[in-house]
Amino acid sequence: MKLTIDRAALLKALGHVQSVVERRNTIPILANVLITAGEETLGLTATDMDLTVEESVAAEVAQAGATTAPAHTLYDIVRKLPDGTQVELATESGGGQMRLTAGRSTFQLATLPKEDFPNVAGGELPQRFELSGAELRNLVDRTRFAISTEETRYYLNGIYLHATKSGDAQVLRGVATDGHRLARFETALPEGAPGMPGVIVPRKTVNELRKLIDDSEESVEVALSDSKIRFSFGATVLTSKLIDGTFPDYERVIPSGNDKVMTVDRKAFHAGVDRVSTISTEKSRAVKLTIGDGTLTVSATSPDNGHASEELEIDYNGDQIEVGFNSRYLLDIAERIDGGTAQFSLSDAASPTIVRDVSDGSALYVLMPMRV
Amino acid sequence: MKLTIDRAALLKALGHVQSVVERRNTIPILANVLITAGEETLGLTATDMDLTVEESVAAEVAQAGATTAPAHTLYDIVRKLPDGTQVELATESGGGQMRLTAGRSTFQLATLPKEDFPNVAGGELPQRFELSGAELRNLVDRTRFAISTEETRYYLNGIYLHATKSGDAQVLRGVATDGHRLARFETALPEGAPGMPGVIVPRKTVNELRKLIDDSEESVEVALSDSKIRFSFGATVLTSKLIDGTFPDYERVIPSGNDKVMTVDRKAFHAGVDRVSTISTEKSRAVKLTIGDGTLTVSATSPDNGHASEELEIDYNGDQIEVGFNSRYLLDIAERIDGGTAQFSLSDAASPTIVRDVSDGSALYVLMPMRV
Repeated sequence: MKLTIDRAALLKALGHVQSVVERRNTIPILANVLITAGEETLGLTATDMDLTVEESVAAEVAQAGATTAPAHTLYDIVRKLPDGTQVELATESGGGQMRLTAGRSTFQLATLPKEDFPNVAGGELPQRFELSGAELRNLVDRTRFAISTEETRYYLNGIYLHATKSGDAQVLRGVATDGHRLARFETALPEGAPGMPGVIVPRKTVNELRKLIDDSEESVEVALSDSKIRFSFGATVLTSKLIDGTFPDYERVIPSGNDKVMTVDRKAFHAGVDRVSTISTEKSRAVKLTIGDGTLTVSATSPDNGHASEELEIDYNGDQIEVGFNSRYLLDIAERIDGGTAQFSLSDAASPTIVRDVSDGSALYVLMPMRV
Repeated sequence: MKLTIDRAALLKALGHVQSVVERRNTIPILANVLITAGEETLGLTATDMDLTVEESVAAEVAQAGATTAPAHTLYDIVRKLPDGTQVELATESGGGQMRLTAGRSTFQLATLPKEDFPNVAGGELPQRFELSGAELRNLVDRTRFAISTEETRYYLNGIYLHATKSGDAQVLRGVATDGHRLARFETALPEGAPGMPGVIVPRKTVNELRKLIDDSEESVEVALSDSKIRFSFGATVLTSKLIDGTFPDYERVIPSGNDKVMTVDRKAFHAGVDRVSTISTEKSRAVKLTIGDGTLTVSATSPDNGHASEELEIDYNGDQIEVGFNSRYLLDIAERIDGGTAQFSLSDAASPTIVRDVSDGSALYVLMPMRV
């Protein structure tokens, strides 16, 4: 194998694949990136056995071939090379090493045979549809904060992606919950998605995907079976196993009869809750919302720290109500609302509350109250 | 006590004192900041018993008085208040609480009596001299990286500040060492400093001081005895205990006969060592310098990662020499050199090397080699 590539192009491609590689690996080959020099193309592949990212990038290939080299070390070296450098990668037959040359620097990196690199990304994924980068970012951004981190409830450790009906419309939904709050995002069901299985996309896959599509305006091709999902966009392909479990019947926890409706300026609400929660104890983080005619009072009391309260202007149509929430959860939701106004639909102090962005119906949040 | 102050002024003053307060405190009063309302002035004081920072700031005082309130909570609240807000602080007699009011926010903070606040900053400090903010920053920046973190060698856990002679000149010197490297900075001995005791200023004091003088061009008044040091500038006073120990005779480790002199571009050297060290093992971080006629080869070998080498242009007048160093220490020193060119004076592979900034004689670094 022998090829030459611009440092910036190599750095970008390595940056895309290397973050899949775990820092501590008991299996040495999983610390490596698979490097494949084909016709005018360098292919890079990294995997943790569950999640694989592949990227191809244009390169000047003098001799085709493949090897594997330590992903983080290679990334660090390329990162530290001066911008504008041409980087040469070369292996010698039977060498067990890859030579990287750039300017007056030479690196000999220990390699492992390409045959040892696990191929877990293959297989036919029959269901295929397209989503725009913006839609997919929205889906992830509106839901992933609610993914459970409790490993025992492994079936909540991801976003539940499925096709369903919302009123008369066919929609694609992403749902995440940790039992205390739930986030639901929906978008028009894309062509090719009807009949798709409901799948749970793991948190790490969601996070890697989100990084990769951060600046991408192109559309993303999604392909899936009931055990794997693949996202393809530009020169990048991410393939992941799905969580093998049953997502709970989340529709049951979304109340339909909440008739006390409050609307509030999103920024003022976020700032007020943030200030008042300074007083909450680290453990409970509880704040109380006292909702009355035209005024919301956010308050918190802690035996150690004292008391805080703040008044906010609201629109409200019901009887006065007091309800407690984890302030962190309120802030999380307020941060997901891009529009200027948040709408809270409440029932009573013991029942779940619904929060929506007044200017955007695609997302819905459900929040369990806490006793204060 | 009752006073009104602009949020920005309060935030700045609190920011200066609160970082002295440790996050975990077994003594409750040490988590608090002393708040004193005098004539048109708000005074803030925080201490960890060893180090005390006091700051005064203009305020509209309606009623003089004093109390203590949780430093971090108060800082967080003020930080979260909108810019431009007027903040009112008030205590009621016998209340045990301080009320903070700003806009539509009200906080009641638990207080502790001002009488419980320890006064450790008092006492006469007979020796007094002035340093410019820039000189003091230089002294700290050129030396603190070499302060030892080994708690058993407590007498190395600070910067040794003392008056001495450099050739014929009277100088004020700051020296820090951890046994592997040594940093020495000197400046003309200020008026008032002759006869001062040699003192060891603790690391935390050095770091707090450095933050406080970060943007200050005014001169700093230094006052000290053999057990305490005080830095006064603008409206801020920092008083600290000194380390009660004997700094080792550091002059013995600064070699005088190193006759092999290499000069190298500082940035190219830093970048080359940084790149090559990517290959070094986490533990040793060793790189080898092979210094020959016109060329320096920086190289590293690791049984796990492979091999790296880079060539740099140098000026060199001696026989070829090979010497190993901890790459982290080389980078630390290269980062302290502001000028374009670093000068290395070497003897052999087992003896300490001296590094200087060619364009600035105020600092000198000594580095112990390591076997590679």
